[in-house]
Amino acid sequence: MPDRSHCPIVAGVHSELIEIRTGTQETVVDLTAAVEEFLDGLGGDGPAEGLLNVFVPHATAGVAVIETGAGSDTDLLAALRDLLPADDRWQHRHGSPGHGRDHVLPAVVPPSVSIPVIGGRPALGTWQSICLVDTNVDNPVRSVRLSLLADTV
Amino acid sequence: MPDRSHCPIVAGVHSELIEIRTGTQETVVDLTAAVEEFLDGLGGDGPAEGLLNVFVPHATAGVAVIETGAGSDTDLLAALRDLLPADDRWQHRHGSPGHGRDHVLPAVVPPSVSIPVIGGRPALGTWQSICLVDTNVDNPVRSVRLSLLADTV
Amino acid sequence: MPDRSHCPIVAGVHSELIEIRTGTQETVVDLTAAVEEFLDGLGGDGPAEGLLNVFVPHATAGVAVIETGAGSDTDLLAALRDLLPADDRWQHRHGSPGHGRDHVLPAVVPPSVSIPVIGGRPALGTWQSICLVDTNVDNPVRSVRLSLLADTV
Repeated sequence: MPDRSHCPIVAGVHSELIEIRTGTQETVVDLTAAVEEFLDGLGGDGPAEGLLNVFVPHATAGVAVIETGAGSDTDLLAALRDLLPADDRWQHRHGSPGHGRDHVLPAVVPPSVSIPVIGGRPALGTWQSICLVDTNVDNPVRSVRLSLLADTV
Repeated sequence: MPDRSHCPIVAGVHSELIEIRTGTQETVVDLTAAVEEFLDGLGGDGPAEGLLNVFVPHATAGVAVIETGAGSDTDLLAALRDLLPADDRWQHRHGSPGHGRDHVLPAVVPPSVSIPVIGGRPALGTWQSICLVDTNVDNPVRSVRLSLLADTV
Repeated sequence: MPDRSHCPIVAGVHSELIEIRTGTQETVVDLTAAVEEFLDGLGGDGPAEGLLNVFVPHATAGVAVIETGAGSDTDLLAALRDLLPADDRWQHRHGSPGHGRDHVLPAVVPPSVSIPVIGGRPALGTWQSICLVDTNVDNPVRSVRLSLLADTV
């Protein structure tokens, strides 16, 4: 911990926009490595302690913290097809058939998640990954904003 | 960016409670203009950099970041009627028929969202709006708490 | 409020991991008292103003802010059984039957929520409680990380 005797501080806010290729099929993309790279790149005079926010500035994508690589990412996309069917029920119509569902997705899978940062690492559980959830097949490249409110940098 | 050479700081926490008229029908209310007004009103010695939290202190409403004005707000309310039907399945019974669904809503559409603030503006995507989602027809007026953890104010 | 005339500050980040017994049945556990105890335990030279993050470092649980003790917690578990059925549709298979649903839960009920802290207390509405939502019957004890970015401590 830094010496806060004179002026206890939060060393500030750091924010960066990264680009993620999501391709032309609905997908779940693991952002954990990119988040760790962002934190490692901050340098500073000690490991950061604070809160990391992962925000997707798009109206047809969300962020989920789930296990990846064991079927759950596919299970999530299947569940979303069931909960928000890609049919003609939606008033919002343009792009691919059923695209209106993509615009409801962020209400159920929000585009923002905040994660504690301890010792410069996201304080995730063993099986947790930070994931971009994108059912929109019309936008192959997405932006993701990583922001840290940190105690030491 | 402020000169942090002497005392790098987060200039503090700013929180304000605003009132939103939601009326007596289920509704999605766009809060984006109110959020921008809140940020503009902070003044300070430079544009704020930080994290904005939008929190609804009610047990039957949520906050969603979606596109408005193109049908998706109506689509969201329709999807919620399908996912959380206003029928007699709910153990929590009082107020309007099916009101129990309104108390499950915040588990699916959380009452809290955090959004990065860059240069004094919420770093939203082109089609994103910050929205109050209120399916509860018995509370025509709602409170919303806007809080900013900021680097410069 | 602290005197910020010389060096307006956020007094720092405070994070603590607590243990919650969830037992061997799907459950909603009210964390509000534990959160208040965490805030009370911080001491400091004034009531904290800031943002509290409640984070569950597990891949099969979430955090919801709902009313408890009036049936809505049971209603939430019933709704989740309906939205994410514990059947054999899931690709992720191990543990109890239908366990794959538990791994999709955090995408719908996120493992992270941030709540404003005003005067040292979480700024919850009258009927809001901060709840751990755990449908996983195979993990009777869970960790929850409480983190505060505060203005005065």
